[in-house]
Amino acid sequence: MKKQYISDAVIRRLPRYYRYLDELHSRGVVRISSSTLGKRMGVTASQIRQDLSCFGEFGQQGYGYNIMELRAEIGRILGVDEPRRLIIIGAGHLGHALLQNFDFAQGGFRLDTAFDVAPELIGTQINGVAIRSMDELDSYCAMYHPAVAVLTVPKNAAQEIANHLVSLGVRGLWNFTNVELDAEESVFVENVHFADSLLTLSYRIAKDPGAGKEET
Amino acid sequence: MKKQYISDAVIRRLPRYYRYLDELHSRGVVRISSSTLGKRMGVTASQIRQDLSCFGEFGQQGYGYNIMELRAEIGRILGVDEPRRLIIIGAGHLGHALLQNFDFAQGGFRLDTAFDVAPELIGTQINGVAIRSMDELDSYCAMYHPAVAVLTVPKNAAQEIANHLVSLGVRGLWNFTNVELDAEESVFVENVHFADSLLTLSYRIAKDPGAGKEET
Repeated sequence: MKKQYISDAVIRRLPRYYRYLDELHSRGVVRISSSTLGKRMGVTASQIRQDLSCFGEFGQQGYGYNIMELRAEIGRILGVDEPRRLIIIGAGHLGHALLQNFDFAQGGFRLDTAFDVAPELIGTQINGVAIRSMDELDSYCAMYHPAVAVLTVPKNAAQEIANHLVSLGVRGLWNFTNVELDAEESVFVENVHFADSLLTLSYRIAKDPGAGKEET
Repeated sequence: MKKQYISDAVIRRLPRYYRYLDELHSRGVVRISSSTLGKRMGVTASQIRQDLSCFGEFGQQGYGYNIMELRAEIGRILGVDEPRRLIIIGAGHLGHALLQNFDFAQGGFRLDTAFDVAPELIGTQINGVAIRSMDELDSYCAMYHPAVAVLTVPKNAAQEIANHLVSLGVRGLWNFTNVELDAEESVFVENVHFADSLLTLSYRIAKDPGAGKEET
C-alpha cells in the first residue's frame, strides 16, 4: 500500500463509499463500475478511481468493482474490523436518541456504558446499555480503556469533560456540543455540526427557481 | 453574478465558511486573508478564492476579506436572510434535542410548531415551541406553508410522512431517519448521516501510529 498524504476530502468520502456499497450489497448487487457508483453518489468515475488509488489497487478494467470485496477493504481502511470501545457522556435527549437508534456495532464500536449525572438515569438501561454515574468514569476507563467518547453534554460542561476524558486516555471525541474544543494534537476531535447540513438545504431551496417566499 | 454549475463540494463548504466567519466575527476580527482562513479550515487559499469566485467578486488583493461583509454575502447566498418557516415532525428524543439546543433562527428559519402522535406530548411546549397533534398537520400547512420539515420520526414511518409532507407543499426535508427517501426531483432531501462522521473518526484513530488495540 502506498504511503502518502491523504486529503481530508478523500477521507470524508470513504464512509460514503462504505455506506453506498453496504446498501448495494444488501440489495444483492455483486459488482459495479466506477461510473455507475459515481452516478449514484454524485461524483465522477475518475474521482472514485483516484480516491481509491490512495489506498491500493481496486477493481479491474472492464469488470468494475466486486462490491463485497471493496466494501470489506474500505471497512478495513476505516478500522471497522478492529473492535474498539466507545462510551457516551451525557444520556439526555441527544444521547438517548443515539443509544436508541444508532448502530455503533456496525461501525466497529463496542458500547456497554453511558455516563450521566442525573440520579433518575443512573442505574437504568437504554437499549441494553447501562447508565452509570459520572463518579464511575475514572474507574471504568482504567479498566476498559475506551478509545472514543461521544460528547452529548451541555455546552458549558464540554471543555472540562473533554480535558478529563483525554487525561483518562480517550483518543477520539465525537463532539455534538457545538463547542470548538481545545485538545492536544494526539487527540482526534470529530465535530457534528448540524447547522452545516441545514444550511446546505437552505441554499438549495433559496437557489431553486420554483422557490417562492413563504407567506407570513 | 455569474451563472454556472456549482458543484456539491463547493455548496457543502459554504456553511463551513459561514460558520468560521461567524466565529471570527464574534471574536471581533475584522478582516482575514484567504490563506489564514484556509489554514483555519484546512483548505488551501486558492480553493477558497476559487469557491467564492463561483458567486461573485469578493476580497481585495493585499487586503483580504472583510469578515462582516463576506459573512453577510455568504448568508445571502445560503438564503439565511429570507425567513422561511420550518416544522419538526417527531418530538421524541432527537426532535426534543433539536428543539432544545439547535438555533433554527440563526439559519433563517422560523419554528413555532412541532408535531407528534404521543398524547403526553401534544399540547405541551418545548423551548417555546408548541407540540401539536399530527392531525393538525394539514391545516397548519394550509395556513402557514412551511418550506422545510425536519424528519425525526421512526424509520418505518419516514417514507409515508415524507410523501404526505410533499403533498402539502413542503419543499425541503431535513432527514434524520437514516432511510433513503424517494422523493420527486422538485423536493430537496438533506440526509444527516451520523455514521459518516463517526467512521471518519474511526479512520483517524485506526491510522494513527500511536494507536494500540484496546484491551478487551
